[in-house]
Amino acid sequence: MARQAAIIGGGIVGGGWAARFLLMGWDVRLYDPNPDCRTKVEAILDDARRSLPGLSDVALPPEGSLTVHNIIAEAVAGTDWIQVCTVGNLASLQDAMCAVQTVCPPDAILGCAIDDYPIAALQETALHPGQILIAHACDPVYLLPLVELIASAVAQNAVVDRAAEILTSVGMHPLRVWAPIGRHLQDALQLAAAAVIHEGSATPQQIDDVIRDGFGLSWAHVGLSGISVAKPRDRDEVLVTLLRGLKARNRAAGAVLNAHDRRLDSLPATLNDIADLSQPVTTLDRAVPLDWTDYNGHMNEARYLQAFGDATDRMMALVGCDMDYVASGVSFFTAETHIRHVDEVQAGTRIRVKTQVLLGQGKKMHLFHKMFDGDRLLATGEHMLIHVDLTTRKAADPDDRVAQPLALIGQAHATLPWPDGVGRTVGRK
Amino acid sequence: MARQAAIIGGGIVGGGWAARFLLMGWDVRLYDPNPDCRTKVEAILDDARRSLPGLSDVALPPEGSLTVHNIIAEAVAGTDWIQVCTVGNLASLQDAMCAVQTVCPPDAILGCAIDDYPIAALQETALHPGQILIAHACDPVYLLPLVELIASAVAQNAVVDRAAEILTSVGMHPLRVWAPIGRHLQDALQLAAAAVIHEGSATPQQIDDVIRDGFGLSWAHVGLSGISVAKPRDRDEVLVTLLRGLKARNRAAGAVLNAHDRRLDSLPATLNDIADLSQPVTTLDRAVPLDWTDYNGHMNEARYLQAFGDATDRMMALVGCDMDYVASGVSFFTAETHIRHVDEVQAGTRIRVKTQVLLGQGKKMHLFHKMFDGDRLLATGEHMLIHVDLTTRKAADPDDRVAQPLALIGQAHATLPWPDGVGRTVGRK
Repeated sequence: MARQAAIIGGGIVGGGWAARFLLMGWDVRLYDPNPDCRTKVEAILDDARRSLPGLSDVALPPEGSLTVHNIIAEAVAGTDWIQVCTVGNLASLQDAMCAVQTVCPPDAILGCAIDDYPIAALQETALHPGQILIAHACDPVYLLPLVELIASAVAQNAVVDRAAEILTSVGMHPLRVWAPIGRHLQDALQLAAAAVIHEGSATPQQIDDVIRDGFGLSWAHVGLSGISVAKPRDRDEVLVTLLRGLKARNRAAGAVLNAHDRRLDSLPATLNDIADLSQPVTTLDRAVPLDWTDYNGHMNEARYLQAFGDATDRMMALVGCDMDYVASGVSFFTAETHIRHVDEVQAGTRIRVKTQVLLGQGKKMHLFHKMFDGDRLLATGEHMLIHVDLTTRKAADPDDRVAQPLALIGQAHATLPWPDGVGRTVGRK
Repeated sequence: MARQAAIIGGGIVGGGWAARFLLMGWDVRLYDPNPDCRTKVEAILDDARRSLPGLSDVALPPEGSLTVHNIIAEAVAGTDWIQVCTVGNLASLQDAMCAVQTVCPPDAILGCAIDDYPIAALQETALHPGQILIAHACDPVYLLPLVELIASAVAQNAVVDRAAEILTSVGMHPLRVWAPIGRHLQDALQLAAAAVIHEGSATPQQIDDVIRDGFGLSWAHVGLSGISVAKPRDRDEVLVTLLRGLKARNRAAGAVLNAHDRRLDSLPATLNDIADLSQPVTTLDRAVPLDWTDYNGHMNEARYLQAFGDATDRMMALVGCDMDYVASGVSFFTAETHIRHVDEVQAGTRIRVKTQVLLGQGKKMHLFHKMFDGDRLLATGEHMLIHVDLTTRKAADPDDRVAQPLALIGQAHATLPWPDGVGRTVGRK
């Protein structure tokens, strides 16, 4: 049987805790007198279902069940963990703790998600002070691993150890501290930012930019004390990985980098930019990024397909299948791919892809990519794309604005000899 | 002809600036009386060559040339930007500025990389105060985009605008502020951390953990003011992308998540864990992560191969080709891949891969993966792997500790019918 947790209060914080326990296989018993609470928690749970399971590279346990209760005694019966997430003042938190303690199992851990008040104040009016801990996580609770665990001297070490073990088992990183550290550091930073704004040295937006495009990225992986001791190559690998993640989402520093790429981009944007249409087209020209390499510095298998996929996207744009065209409800989907890995390549090396259109007719676009480092052939990629209606997800003929350029380049490439490796079957020449 | 920048002082900061200008196509003229300076800057440049070009998704301009000069007048002749990176006290910085200004082009911008002193103090003894700006970047200068640009009232707006334009052209994000903001915020945070340590509420290591596993990850993409206004789904996508980047590098919060995965992993670790060796083996069981999806939420083409690559890694481990084996100098390399994309899948969906060994003999491992969502077939992957000697990078027979388990499962699977799609050629059935 799944382990049981009770959540007292189904707001954003309570919903986040409920989602984490549920997706880690616990049954969750929610106490909240608000009749809308299930709807609100289900919305948070939907967000969590999109994001938390895939954060792992292995399967999570089967999701637990969520029940909503109007009576505290029902909610807390048989639970190992009770998380109090009610918003309010100290008195209302103390009342909630007392109400729980009169009916809950004596060995359940009673965590307070709110770090506004000292642990001693929460324990002052409690029936069993040693059962209470502050367990404060960051929003979204279902994604960020940190939990600050604050216990006073009245809590037995065994209780704190059990709390840490439970939090670890739901994927969190419990830290036993003696005051709310995150809150203190955030407050200090807010205060410093307010002073900067007050003295007219920068705007709030600029302060955000200073953090996002600068040292905030270092804090995220080395913390505060580690900035000066990180090894340059390790640090660069992590920074590049973070920056490229932000680039993929076009957010924060990633948006700055994407704007720079648009200024530098020198590949043809339309067929008219191509001097000799009868030759294979350069569809990718870039250096191998550090986040595409494995532990020994070579480009990872899947990244060959990523590069070929980017080259395919460029070819699609060249024949008019750009963002506007896709927004009109049609696009090309890759149906089939054949890659031959010919040679290895390391981070920082400049690679180019040249693309030959083997067929561009009707619903089909049949491409052959060759990836080079200078003259050295690294890989070939043969791809069959099918033009689809994005509503029905079925094959459909392209519009003229794509069909005509595609036919044009297909005919221009028809005179080229078929490259070595076309039509290959895995394992047989 | 490439544009010219001079760097005065070839330490870590000067080397970082030199690397950024060089890799963005500028010629760099380095002034540093230290005879080792070229060696030191070349080492930084090597790190930058690994990391900066691949940060972009397009090709950077051809790298500029680096020359080292003993005479300041030679270093600054013909430059558009002179970056003073000398370490020392205010007087030595002022001396360096004066020495530069007596010989440099009158319209060159003179940036001071050091933000220890007020701009007014730097200008006090200058020949042309309006030529001087503080241009402070974060380490590593070649990766992090932020530049705080501090100019006093004596600088004309045209000079500041030109400085911003040049910094933007080398991929940076210039922010015109009126005092060093980053330094002030970092100092405030350090002070708050010192107070926490002093009062005994947490250790320096715990403070790092609070930042890395908690709100530091939010700061990195929303800054300080944005935490409360980010949309949950957008925020989750960025957080998952950052967390999975850290996971791939096994750093900071990523190490916490990997430890959790190891506890949850329920797939077979050796052939002995498999109940029925005559059936295809489950080699992957996970949810589709948000960073594997494109803008409309479907799993991206290249991530199918990433999932199949992970499944292949699991099969390698099952036949004894684990980290220890690879550390002994041999491994399997993928030579050829054929993927059929059968159906789409969205973030959060649980996917499983079942793997059939078509051949496990001599140097060859021929695998056929099927990817499912429940019973729904999403894709197939046919892969030919070759066992290689990692020193010579040539094909070589595996050791018995791999050859025997591989033969065992190959023989057990030999009775299975060949799956539909084996030996397919792109575009023909």
